Amino acid sequence: MRQSEIFTKILREAPKDELSINAQLLIRAGFVDKLMAGVYSYLPLGLLVFKKIENIIREEINNIGGQEVLLPVLHPKALWEKTGRWQHEEMFRLKNREEKEFSLGWTHEEIVTPLVKNFVNSYKDLPVYVYQIQDKFRDELRSKSGLLRGREFVMKDLYSFHADEKDLDSYYEKVKIAYFKIFERCGLGKDTFLTLASGGTFSKYSHEFQTITPAGEDEIYLCPKCNLGINKEIIQEEKNQCPECGNKKLEIRKSIEVGNIFKLKDKYTKVFDFKFKDKEGQEKIVMMGCYGIGLGRLMGTIVEAHNDTRGMIWPEEVAPFKVHLIKIGESLEVKSLAEKIYQDLQKQGIEVLYDDRENKTAGEKFAEADLIGIPLRMVVSEKTLKLDSVEMKKRTEEEIKLIKINDLPQFLN
Amino acid sequence: MRQSEIFTKILREAPKDELSINAQLLIRAGFVDKLMAGVYSYLPLGLLVFKKIENIIREEINNIGGQEVLLPVLHPKALWEKTGRWQHEEMFRLKNREEKEFSLGWTHEEIVTPLVKNFVNSYKDLPVYVYQIQDKFRDELRSKSGLLRGREFVMKDLYSFHADEKDLDSYYEKVKIAYFKIFERCGLGKDTFLTLASGGTFSKYSHEFQTITPAGEDEIYLCPKCNLGINKEIIQEEKNQCPECGNKKLEIRKSIEVGNIFKLKDKYTKVFDFKFKDKEGQEKIVMMGCYGIGLGRLMGTIVEAHNDTRGMIWPEEVAPFKVHLIKIGESLEVKSLAEKIYQDLQKQGIEVLYDDRENKTAGEKFAEADLIGIPLRMVVSEKTLKLDSVEMKKRTEEEIKLIKINDLPQFLN
Repeated sequence: MRQSEIFTKILREAPKDELSINAQLLIRAGFVDKLMAGVYSYLPLGLLVFKKIENIIREEINNIGGQEVLLPVLHPKALWEKTGRWQHEEMFRLKNREEKEFSLGWTHEEIVTPLVKNFVNSYKDLPVYVYQIQDKFRDELRSKSGLLRGREFVMKDLYSFHADEKDLDSYYEKVKIAYFKIFERCGLGKDTFLTLASGGTFSKYSHEFQTITPAGEDEIYLCPKCNLGINKEIIQEEKNQCPECGNKKLEIRKSIEVGNIFKLKDKYTKVFDFKFKDKEGQEKIVMMGCYGIGLGRLMGTIVEAHNDTRGMIWPEEVAPFKVHLIKIGESLEVKSLAEKIYQDLQKQGIEVLYDDRENKTAGEKFAEADLIGIPLRMVVSEKTLKLDSVEMKKRTEEEIKLIKINDLPQFLN
Repeated sequence: MRQSEIFTKILREAPKDELSINAQLLIRAGFVDKLMAGVYSYLPLGLLVFKKIENIIREEINNIGGQEVLLPVLHPKALWEKTGRWQHEEMFRLKNREEKEFSLGWTHEEIVTPLVKNFVNSYKDLPVYVYQIQDKFRDELRSKSGLLRGREFVMKDLYSFHADEKDLDSYYEKVKIAYFKIFERCGLGKDTFLTLASGGTFSKYSHEFQTITPAGEDEIYLCPKCNLGINKEIIQEEKNQCPECGNKKLEIRKSIEVGNIFKLKDKYTKVFDFKFKDKEGQEKIVMMGCYGIGLGRLMGTIVEAHNDTRGMIWPEEVAPFKVHLIKIGESLEVKSLAEKIYQDLQKQGIEVLYDDRENKTAGEKFAEADLIGIPLRMVVSEKTLKLDSVEMKKRTEEEIKLIKINDLPQFLN
């Protein structure tokens, strides 16, 4: 993509009302725009990152058998009354012109449970794993953390349905592994910890995936021996020690919840009378699990975990582009060499942002490139032209390397 | 994809409250599920079609320079008061816990105009073309036409911003061509006509793209000489004749509006004081156009245009799969041949739905295949096995051909 053609621009300053690093950097770099507290637009560069994250999640959930669907935002009141959640304080409610009441989905148990029930009669129809990547709404009182806490946000929500608890348990472990792969691919592997959290009324504990960062709104107690986190909300219940090894030297860390998984068991299937016939022809209640990841929050967390004073530092797999090609100087030779490299990289299938702009100094271009945070910077200038080379610099390193133009193909593969 | 693994099932009967052919067929085949009037879930097979349509639209809009963004559903009241549309009868309004008022987006001029204004100062920053593929909400009184009229629906909305009317006019013509390509690729080319419609207060006429089908809620007067449609709402204004050639022998046809394009000119840019500096340094108002296609409506229209008494008939480019491979018989030989063909087709990159189910008769499998409507049916049975062949049948034809297994690769390429 040619930088001259992107309609957004780098802003000199972050908006004054944005306190979080993720929002400051993403807004300044033109990745997102804030419409109001907790409600953001994704602009071209931000949407590229968003879609990379989306595809990573889709691949890993497909790998564990997930079948993708797309459920509605607008829900009828009756289904939420049935589960007793119609008055949930974070749910938006509204009426149409005929005074019929609806809610905006903030989770989808009320929709997916009766839907899957339609298609399941026998144990032969189980298990079922369905997920969607879809817009959710929560009436949050505080939304001051940029993409970390949205009133409107896209979520991957997976729901699993099983013949018995054993099968639920075994799928639950598969989801754990898939989640770690997702966070690893998003560059959060080493900072993200499985964390015990309150399970609600239906299970003793659920599991969260918590990423350690100073921007976190959560607090976990981390056992350095087991790499297990214990959410602050249950640490007293666990007598301030690690439930795995008994270790009492736990480290308190601020963290962001990037994913959570719940064994719902029969909590919703019972309400919707979702039964199946087992091998003996006996009717039994279906067991259920649910598994969420917020995509915007994940994107915000990546920025919180990977930045420096100059800007964002995108991990390879979620970077909007692999290479930021920068042309310095206005001579025809420099221009035609830069154009040629731009075309060649594209032919090789390498995603490249090409800073072809004429009205910017080298200093401005480098500062903007650092803010945008593409993994590899490649500079073509009079100086490099004379040496038949381009300058290469990784965003994570200070060292600049000269690479001969003829060596570029093998260097990049 | 293995048919045995899809969690949905073919339903014996269409729901009694569904009057439209598109909803009856799509629900029976497990492509969509109705949550309530005008609100549908997309299930795995339906989502495959939906994404094909989405990708066609994305490709064609990218080809005319569109930059993709993702704008919010939840809008602040102030922006809609500014344009005088806060009280629009089809807009859903709601309040949060703090009694702040919001609306759900049914179009996005109020959001995109101030957004783009942020990044445009000079004529050098124009034109700008931004679009999104995103969820919209309308408080419809009647929603009885399946996917044709949704209360919640995904729309591609493109907005263009120009330095002058001439530039707007020339882009408007480019969009027309892109739209015809989209409808052509979706299998609606020959039935879809550019149609003059009311332009509102800001232009004499806008243009609609109307697809002729008995299920249409619109009525157009079609000039067989010019292939131009005239919407019923303006036919009197045009004195019951074709404005292009004066022809008075117009054909009245029922039709579905699958797209519309508007020259908004300065209608919204004026309200938001969206100006730019021209070459002489003079401030001028930006000119604007908007261009919509509803994805669900398009999918419903394709079904209305392509079906027979046995079911749906998907056009090649939007079919959920290219090949429906059906195994008839339980012998090991038949099973292993079918499995091999399934693997080979996938290796060749051919999308295939493999009916590997054991508990269905040949008759049931064929009836379900006809309902689902994949373009090419391929049958492996004891009979074909003996002839080293598979049976091929196009969904659009009655003829069955025997193809030697060794000839399959070249036949399919």
